[in-house]
Amino acid sequence: MDVGDIADGASGMQGAISGLAAAEVLKQQDRESAKRAIAARLIPAGGGNPFPVDLDYVLKEGESAEPITPDSPEALEIYRHSTSHLLAAAVLDLYPGTKLGIGPALIDDPKGGFFYDFQREDGRFTPEDLPKIEKRMRELIKRNLSYHRVEMRKQEAERKFSEMGEPLKCELIEDKGGETVSCYTIDGTPFIDFCLGPHIPATGKIKAFKLLTIAGAHWLGDESRPQMQRIYGTAFFSQEELDEWLKQKEEAERRDHRKLGVELDLFSFSDAIGPGLVLWHPNGAQIRKTIEQFLTDELYQRGYSFVNTPHVTQSELFRISGHLENYQEGLYPAMKDKENERLEYRMKPMNCPFHIQIYRSRQRSYRDLPQRYAEYGMVYRYERSGVTHGMMRARGFTQDDAHIFCTPDQLHAEIVSCLELVDFVLKAFGFEYKTELSVRHPHDHSKYIGSDEGWKIAETALAGALESRELPYQRMEDEAAFYGPKIDFKVVDAIKRLWQLSTIQVDFTLPQRFGLEYIGPDNKPHQPIMVHRAILGSFERFFGILIEHYAGAFPVWLAPVQAAVLPISDKYNQQAVAVEKELRDLGLRVTSDLRGEKIGAKIRDAQLKKIPFMLVLGEREAASGTIAVRDRLKGDLGASTVAEFGSRLHELVRSRAVTT
Amino acid sequence: MDVGDIADGASGMQGAISGLAAAEVLKQQDRESAKRAIAARLIPAGGGNPFPVDLDYVLKEGESAEPITPDSPEALEIYRHSTSHLLAAAVLDLYPGTKLGIGPALIDDPKGGFFYDFQREDGRFTPEDLPKIEKRMRELIKRNLSYHRVEMRKQEAERKFSEMGEPLKCELIEDKGGETVSCYTIDGTPFIDFCLGPHIPATGKIKAFKLLTIAGAHWLGDESRPQMQRIYGTAFFSQEELDEWLKQKEEAERRDHRKLGVELDLFSFSDAIGPGLVLWHPNGAQIRKTIEQFLTDELYQRGYSFVNTPHVTQSELFRISGHLENYQEGLYPAMKDKENERLEYRMKPMNCPFHIQIYRSRQRSYRDLPQRYAEYGMVYRYERSGVTHGMMRARGFTQDDAHIFCTPDQLHAEIVSCLELVDFVLKAFGFEYKTELSVRHPHDHSKYIGSDEGWKIAETALAGALESRELPYQRMEDEAAFYGPKIDFKVVDAIKRLWQLSTIQVDFTLPQRFGLEYIGPDNKPHQPIMVHRAILGSFERFFGILIEHYAGAFPVWLAPVQAAVLPISDKYNQQAVAVEKELRDLGLRVTSDLRGEKIGAKIRDAQLKKIPFMLVLGEREAASGTIAVRDRLKGDLGASTVAEFGSRLHELVRSRAVTT
Repeated sequence: MDVGDIADGASGMQGAISGLAAAEVLKQQDRESAKRAIAARLIPAGGGNPFPVDLDYVLKEGESAEPITPDSPEALEIYRHSTSHLLAAAVLDLYPGTKLGIGPALIDDPKGGFFYDFQREDGRFTPEDLPKIEKRMRELIKRNLSYHRVEMRKQEAERKFSEMGEPLKCELIEDKGGETVSCYTIDGTPFIDFCLGPHIPATGKIKAFKLLTIAGAHWLGDESRPQMQRIYGTAFFSQEELDEWLKQKEEAERRDHRKLGVELDLFSFSDAIGPGLVLWHPNGAQIRKTIEQFLTDELYQRGYSFVNTPHVTQSELFRISGHLENYQEGLYPAMKDKENERLEYRMKPMNCPFHIQIYRSRQRSYRDLPQRYAEYGMVYRYERSGVTHGMMRARGFTQDDAHIFCTPDQLHAEIVSCLELVDFVLKAFGFEYKTELSVRHPHDHSKYIGSDEGWKIAETALAGALESRELPYQRMEDEAAFYGPKIDFKVVDAIKRLWQLSTIQVDFTLPQRFGLEYIGPDNKPHQPIMVHRAILGSFERFFGILIEHYAGAFPVWLAPVQAAVLPISDKYNQQAVAVEKELRDLGLRVTSDLRGEKIGAKIRDAQLKKIPFMLVLGEREAASGTIAVRDRLKGDLGASTVAEFGSRLHELVRSRAVTT
Repeated sequence: MDVGDIADGASGMQGAISGLAAAEVLKQQDRESAKRAIAARLIPAGGGNPFPVDLDYVLKEGESAEPITPDSPEALEIYRHSTSHLLAAAVLDLYPGTKLGIGPALIDDPKGGFFYDFQREDGRFTPEDLPKIEKRMRELIKRNLSYHRVEMRKQEAERKFSEMGEPLKCELIEDKGGETVSCYTIDGTPFIDFCLGPHIPATGKIKAFKLLTIAGAHWLGDESRPQMQRIYGTAFFSQEELDEWLKQKEEAERRDHRKLGVELDLFSFSDAIGPGLVLWHPNGAQIRKTIEQFLTDELYQRGYSFVNTPHVTQSELFRISGHLENYQEGLYPAMKDKENERLEYRMKPMNCPFHIQIYRSRQRSYRDLPQRYAEYGMVYRYERSGVTHGMMRARGFTQDDAHIFCTPDQLHAEIVSCLELVDFVLKAFGFEYKTELSVRHPHDHSKYIGSDEGWKIAETALAGALESRELPYQRMEDEAAFYGPKIDFKVVDAIKRLWQLSTIQVDFTLPQRFGLEYIGPDNKPHQPIMVHRAILGSFERFFGILIEHYAGAFPVWLAPVQAAVLPISDKYNQQAVAVEKELRDLGLRVTSDLRGEKIGAKIRDAQLKKIPFMLVLGEREAASGTIAVRDRLKGDLGASTVAEFGSRLHELVRSRAVTT
């Protein structure tokens, strides 16, 4: 059956179905899918955008319906939303008088699949309450209670909730409700809440759910409003999916870079400094330096120059670039100059305008192009303190960005070279990746600036480069930057999460805004094209991802300590120091554990620090001039001379081996 | 004759000399020195601080006098001040009606030894006027005209200058003059100006002077006041000294890092970004990277860890550290938080409090010490825009500082190790240096904080370390930092100028303010000592000094381009590229000049860029597979194979040879 058949079938049925409930209509269409339906997709008369409705929605003239089954894109949200109602119903059953806040579904949120905010009359929820509530929810599921939509006039709804002693709810209805207000109830429970719906037909549809955590909350998220408690839970259509998600969540928590950051002494934040501003500790900074050096060597090889630019500027620079107008929200607040009240300073959210100033500092000839300026430039973006998240979303982060100024003729080759670099670097960290080419909307160009010709040159260059590299990619319409098309790269981490990292963007706008020029072979000024590109994105976020990807167990080439010498007793401390020195002299990062601890404790500590190799020194080794090599994962590897081990370690570093 | 004799002699004469002019008194004391005197040092009755007076000053009861001769510390200022009066006299002679601004002497100012501000009635001075004015000054010198001090009541002085049409002068007298006002004249010229003096007795005393430049000025330096012209000149007691100074000045101008920065494309500033914020261009950043790498390798060898910290913090951090209170002037203005009006942010003027936060992020044991945190941390200090000076005095600069947290027992060894590092690094750049130990005032400790015991431990450690290194040093009393004693290092550059670079400071205060601790072997908390140390000071300033020290001709290991391949014609371009690649593959920084220019032009350009080696490729070389090596300084070095030249270059890099 092709798409045309479905459309014909649907339109052929329209006359017959008005006045019937959606459930009935679906049953007429296909008994099998109707049975699996949890809601319906209503296609309005005259062909507006379809939207989901309850299964007992009664169709009007000209409307038609399709089933929303567990595999439909809308299904999970409706299902989870209904589970949150079930949670509220169970809570009201168990703790009468509890006031309700909001209770939406969540999709792709590590915290869960839904939550409901509550205000208990008689105390506070504790984690021990969750199994009790879950139990009550299961009982309500077993009874397969119906969900009902109740529509009433706004005033009536406000009166009703006022009578129930829910002034906050009245406020919400006043604020958000239309002339007619919809509420939902669950049969056989005291539950009723203002809600747009739709919902599943009955509690029996809920197959797999779990309550997760209790968090502090405020009415409507406003700290000045009453405090509430938020219960998080999640729900899936099958126990297998739920189990898989819980496992993934546990795994993600085990790998949480904030937790490992403390355990492995990699980085921290300080209350006196404030949120989102990272302190890289020696271990973390060591890894960063290794990554920087690796990237720097590659960039020099590939004809980049490094530059250094300041972190602050007079606002004028960002007025010209347009950031002051278009990026105000993301900027740190202004600093008023002390000498001249008309002047103000801003911390930089981007490096591009600075690199442009270097380009502009002298006349350029076509012979000087391309100019490729790289900088590990720390930028500052004002994120709300609530949304900062460890290294992943910081207020200050160090972009590994570069800006290439080139002629239109050079654009293709420059992008090919960027693609090669991205491939080389991401693979060095063991990442596979997905590629997307983001272009304008095919017809609606209102969001975008610049000439059609420019867009065409840029897109042709990007697509052509992808094709000449035979790199499969997804074309994303209406996803371009406002100033030009771009290629984005998403890496897949060890637990199959996707992270957007690298980007290659073509820009005509900034060169034009700053009046950039080069003198062409015709002796006339021309405007260069600018390529913005970042490979890692930022060192902070990339490091956060790496920590989670490797679960803190860094490959040897990155590990801050590559091997620890563990003498069995004080007797061998001197020899341990000699082994350490011999390996250090080879340029390896080695420490000795000379504490008066038992060897078991020393091994356990080294394991906790995720040091790739432990070199045990006891009587036998001391006598034979060897070390007993222990691999963090594989355990005992037997005896080896220090020189042998050193060259083995060297080879692991040189090849950037991901596993030992 | 010892000091006691002089004192006795002087006091013995006091009764006899009152009522006599100082010149007369000096002659009685010692004819020889009286002849050389240009002014007198008056010792007040009752023994107040001596001060300089004119030679025709008539001594009062109880006063005595000493000669001020050219070698006296006060002499140069009086002499130059008198030369500036001579300049004004000559100008009034030549350009009658010219109004006078101020005309002070300058000491140790690269712009000159004096200036006078003028407002011409009939036009503006041009550089061509200077020889004419100098000529008139020489004529006035030949006539040996007397300087005279004229004292009058303030009102009388104001009337006089008012009659002369000098309202600005009246304003100055009104503002600065006491009840009695002194003016100075020069016989036989129309010159008179309000002036405190003293002056030389007559123009014939002036032996060597030169007018230098004309600059724009405003009355009293206030831009809202009338515009004037400032004529700079200098004067010395001998033509030899003047010639030496002019040569030095010319040499300093030739080496000016701001001029060379443009010529060699090393760095720039941008009006849109603002003053004092450096843009490092690829060539400059390449040199910086080489220096950073050199230093980093050394620091890792010496047991330092690197850390990275942000450039902005909540003010709280600097409130605790005391910077907010004690360093307000030097801070960039505050940024008010967008979410919380009680919060504000500051850009960091120092890295120390950030490193302290890393130390504080976990409990430390004596076994963990010393912790040595290094960072190339960019700091921001608000300098008035008028005092910024290229790289030498910037608003944003990158300190190569480190902070060592150690136990009192470890202090000596840590300082010795810092001394070794300073010695190693400064000598690598070919610098000799002088060492100073700055301690408290021997008695007056009001400027200093902390316990006597702390100061004693610190000073003993610093002095002991200097002595164990057998490093000669000057003890500077009352020159310590307010929180502790320090060792400062001054390097001597190629034209004998002194530059303060490295510093090692011992600090008890910040550890105390931040409540730092380590658990000692006694299982109790103790306060660590903090050592602040910087070797280069800042990369920006050090680079500025290096540019001037080497006059832009960097040693091979630092040169951004180490060799340029110069094919004699297009025919050899391909071979040139091959030579370039062969050398690049050895890790050397090499370019090819493939333009269609004559070889003479290519050599000239490479010389201008101060590239150490030029590798000429012509028919003979192409045939024999060699290159003709040309040293930037020594000229032609003959033919060489690429491999031979490569290993020679490598050796120059490895040994960080200062000359080829």
